Amino acid sequence: MTAEERRGAQAYAAAALEASGVVLTEAERAGIEVADFGLGRLAESGLQLVVYVNTDRHCAKELVLRPGQTCPEHLHPPFEGTPGKEETFRCRRGVVHLYVEGEPTPDPACRPPQGVYTVFHELVLRPGDQYTIPPGTKHWFQAGPDGAIVSEFSTASRDEHDAFTDPNVRRVAAQDAAARSTGDGSAA
Amino acid sequence: MTAEERRGAQAYAAAALEASGVVLTEAERAGIEVADFGLGRLAESGLQLVVYVNTDRHCAKELVLRPGQTCPEHLHPPFEGTPGKEETFRCRRGVVHLYVEGEPTPDPACRPPQGVYTVFHELVLRPGDQYTIPPGTKHWFQAGPDGAIVSEFSTASRDEHDAFTDPNVRRVAAQDAAARSTGDGSAA
Repeated sequence: MTAEERRGAQAYAAAALEASGVVLTEAERAGIEVADFGLGRLAESGLQLVVYVNTDRHCAKELVLRPGQTCPEHLHPPFEGTPGKEETFRCRRGVVHLYVEGEPTPDPACRPPQGVYTVFHELVLRPGDQYTIPPGTKHWFQAGPDGAIVSEFSTASRDEHDAFTDPNVRRVAAQDAAARSTGDGSAA
Repeated sequence: MTAEERRGAQAYAAAALEASGVVLTEAERAGIEVADFGLGRLAESGLQLVVYVNTDRHCAKELVLRPGQTCPEHLHPPFEGTPGKEETFRCRRGVVHLYVEGEPTPDPACRPPQGVYTVFHELVLRPGDQYTIPPGTKHWFQAGPDGAIVSEFSTASRDEHDAFTDPNVRRVAAQDAAARSTGDGSAA
């Protein structure tokens, strides 16, 4: 992901949130996280995030997706004696197609992008709809043609523990990788 | 609280949330909780709530306050082996004055309504501002002259455990009391 791509994604997310009535502080706007999951195809596989709070016990974020953008398949494993992250997705704007474990939906609305995808039970979330994902459950999601804003309410979020089905995924934003100087991008 | 007061408060909250861009389902609109804390002075001491999710591990709500309306002083004690509810208030609309334990603020913006209030360390939350309240910390809050919408992100919420400073407070909505047929209103 280039610096220009990142800035563009931040600007898109800031505008989408503002249009939906979400007020951010200046620091939050400047710190919008852009994840390309190490795949280098941001428009296709990517996510923009604002993390409001993330303590050892509770967490809340806004997730912004561009039209057709996908968050790759992953699950939240147990960590530090907890069962792992339990999260509720609530759609605020647009439509988000959420795929979880279970009976594959015949004729699903989305096709996954390039990568490894194994769960195809479809839930369609429109504004006001929500769904709670238990820990340890594989899931991925894709925005509809107008993009989407999803509020995420959860227990503690520890991105570095997320287990992605596609071994090529690295859950780290370019700026974080640079800031952390981990070198191999495997830290988060 | 009369049925008419309750309906009026629900209608106010639904309109305020809609104006702020929050989309509710029909069931959520119909189920907006109105709390008068058993004091019978709803305009002064009261709260309107939409509970999005409340599992054993995470919870999210929207709190709606009318102009000058106050949520009485209380704390969240330990329960069921947990340290008690940890909650983040994020102001969405209007202004909310939050009072917590600590050095009393000289010349605070609000005066508490009739009742028992003992903490006066003031935080002023405007849209985009937020504050996390640890378990076991006394707090109360009052909306400014235009009312307020506050998103609450937290660990599990168990209203029946809330400890109010004022012994006259009963944390139960009239419709809940009727539904539960507890008779004395002390169940929640």
